[in-house]
Amino acid sequence: MNKTEPRTLAGFMELMPNEQILFEQMKQKIEKTYQKFGFLPLDTPILELSEVLLAKAGGETEKQIYRFEKGSTDISMRFDLTVPLSKYVAKNYGNLSFPFRRYQIGKVYRGERTQKGRFREFYQCDIDIIGDGELSVINDAELPSVIYNVFKELGFDDFTICINNRKILNGLFESLEQKENAAEILRIIDKIEKIGKEAVIEELEKIEVSKKSIEAIMNFIEIDGTTDEKIEKLNNLNIENETFKLGLEELTQVVKYVRTFGIPDTNFKVDLTIARGLDYYTGTVYETFLNQYRELGSICSGGRYENLAEYYTDKKLPGVGISIGLTRLFYKLNELNLIKANKKSIADILIIPMIEDMTKPIQIANELRKKGINTEIYLNDKKLKAKFKYADKLEIPYVIVIGEDEINANVVKVRNMITGEEKEYSFKDISNIKI
Amino acid sequence: MNKTEPRTLAGFMELMPNEQILFEQMKQKIEKTYQKFGFLPLDTPILELSEVLLAKAGGETEKQIYRFEKGSTDISMRFDLTVPLSKYVAKNYGNLSFPFRRYQIGKVYRGERTQKGRFREFYQCDIDIIGDGELSVINDAELPSVIYNVFKELGFDDFTICINNRKILNGLFESLEQKENAAEILRIIDKIEKIGKEAVIEELEKIEVSKKSIEAIMNFIEIDGTTDEKIEKLNNLNIENETFKLGLEELTQVVKYVRTFGIPDTNFKVDLTIARGLDYYTGTVYETFLNQYRELGSICSGGRYENLAEYYTDKKLPGVGISIGLTRLFYKLNELNLIKANKKSIADILIIPMIEDMTKPIQIANELRKKGINTEIYLNDKKLKAKFKYADKLEIPYVIVIGEDEINANVVKVRNMITGEEKEYSFKDISNIKI
Repeated sequence: MNKTEPRTLAGFMELMPNEQILFEQMKQKIEKTYQKFGFLPLDTPILELSEVLLAKAGGETEKQIYRFEKGSTDISMRFDLTVPLSKYVAKNYGNLSFPFRRYQIGKVYRGERTQKGRFREFYQCDIDIIGDGELSVINDAELPSVIYNVFKELGFDDFTICINNRKILNGLFESLEQKENAAEILRIIDKIEKIGKEAVIEELEKIEVSKKSIEAIMNFIEIDGTTDEKIEKLNNLNIENETFKLGLEELTQVVKYVRTFGIPDTNFKVDLTIARGLDYYTGTVYETFLNQYRELGSICSGGRYENLAEYYTDKKLPGVGISIGLTRLFYKLNELNLIKANKKSIADILIIPMIEDMTKPIQIANELRKKGINTEIYLNDKKLKAKFKYADKLEIPYVIVIGEDEINANVVKVRNMITGEEKEYSFKDISNIKI
Repeated sequence: MNKTEPRTLAGFMELMPNEQILFEQMKQKIEKTYQKFGFLPLDTPILELSEVLLAKAGGETEKQIYRFEKGSTDISMRFDLTVPLSKYVAKNYGNLSFPFRRYQIGKVYRGERTQKGRFREFYQCDIDIIGDGELSVINDAELPSVIYNVFKELGFDDFTICINNRKILNGLFESLEQKENAAEILRIIDKIEKIGKEAVIEELEKIEVSKKSIEAIMNFIEIDGTTDEKIEKLNNLNIENETFKLGLEELTQVVKYVRTFGIPDTNFKVDLTIARGLDYYTGTVYETFLNQYRELGSICSGGRYENLAEYYTDKKLPGVGISIGLTRLFYKLNELNLIKANKKSIADILIIPMIEDMTKPIQIANELRKKGINTEIYLNDKKLKAKFKYADKLEIPYVIVIGEDEINANVVKVRNMITGEEKEYSFKDISNIKI
């Protein structure tokens, strides 16, 4: 028979089992943390009507969409989890309780140019809090607490959640009469980390921002010190602009409550350069960095938006949310060997029978499984050495060999595969096993 | 602004949060049970090259595929989890340890005609055990044990796992010199539940099976009694055919070990009418029924196959597997109100602040979350009644109201939302809370 080459599409992650175990653990830790804050699960279709999914999209996004016709239906694959959320909330507005706090962990699709570490199919892990008409700014302080708990849970200590407020930036530009240029200026100063101060000034000059305004902008961006010093300096700017004042007030509130939520000052800071490229955000914005690995870019970002679902409904639905791009994060962390696993195997124990009759091995497995111990029986006929090699390759931490001797002596020997230590149990005591 | 109607595609399930919670619990119970038997997680792309995915497909299957071009690439969405598994095993043959035991829980896509209870996007929950060259028949006895544990875990007692062996049927046909007709005869007798005995005989006559053969076939199908009686009667048929004998031997072994795995005779039986329509299966086959709800059809099916990946590799890879169509199962069970939930909410406790300063409520939430209690704080400004209604709608079992009185008295009252009972704790004892 002619064989087809078993290929996987470029840009689609497919892991070996030992890596998949690590991936699943990361995913589960994120999910458990989201649940700890009471977020509700949501699962929306991967396919949507193009008309619905692309109500807002355009430009770059639209080019990347996987879009096709099935029968006479124009269908697209979702490219994020925010648009499906908007649709869902607009559609089910009358049946949802607000604030609607949901998490969604699922695959999204973008037909980007493939390159190392970029994926066309990837998991996003999102939470959003949606208010009906209004949403207290204290919610903006709770999300950093979720971010903090997620990354602590993933085994990280040295990370920084950077917080800013778009109203402060917007207000500054208004006060400088640069409101028209605001989006463009934001885009430019957002690059300061990448291209440096001089290049930013040059780009600002190119779009004809006055010397005086550039000076004010750079003074503003260069505000430094502790979080409290930054807030004090912002106050001392005495900028007479309502948007600026409101933003500063919100930021002050957020900082206060971020501390109340128990985030140490070593794990968050006010960073006035963060704008988040999108026009979408209107208040608090977040980015998160591993301090030893800044080159990974932000590993968890998000912010406050004014109106979630304006393309679908007249209801005003303000929200605040964050997103973790899990596939890329996993890929990078795995490459850097930074994933802290609780377990490296699914099975806790491998039972290796060296006899033909499987009755005893199965009975022992039954007992162990009842106890909640993940147990595998090696059921195929192989040499002892091959069976041990199997346990080794799967990194199963404990092995029980059952041969004639064990059957006759009515005992089970549990071998720790790392230390080589063995403990003996009688058959009837097997449920007292300690692993 | 012109609004787009926020619609979801027909045939795509999208649940309300309270249902989604039930769905996630079912999914998790299935996954935990799969892990208890040591199956390894696998996650493959939803998109595959059409050439790879459709190497085998044809006819009905191919018509249902979501297939499209992106750039110059011919892409299809997976329609099951078995073909991606075949590809994966063939592709990674050299790096996998055999027997390769994997579970995969994921969405698959079939553009079927939409009708109530049928879905175009649905979850399959699969396990397979793949051998390298050979695979002991005892594996065939372990899978019913997984099925048994899954449905017990899901809260069911009255279900039957029906077991048969295709070699017995095939051997019978060979002995009747009906080998050429075997597939057709199987297809017909597979319908006996639906269309009845007379209609089956009629259809067999139509394809010119001799009266004598039909009699032998019907005698065979009508073998009844207990599992052991059936096996005895099969032995007593004295059919001199090697395939038949091998099948009977395998079935006898499977029955023996199914009992060793602890499945009571009330939860499994030998059912000689089960053939599983597909040509794919070559040995043991399974179907599972809820006895009170036979109309749901089989809720977990599968069997033994000779060669997993013959379209991709020369390696002989025998396997045995089962699949649960979770989306449809959930839909039906939910309709029948048969889903047993451990929890109906994500949050265990809702903290309702009746004060402006959120410091105390947040501090209490921090303590509870540290203790592993899923805790939500109602952060928005609403009347007490609205906040209680929110807890009610989300079915959150405990509520803590914090007002001036509680702050002054340094206490927290935890209210059980079902019994109305209240327990008081001092602030510093909040981590001793019992819920």
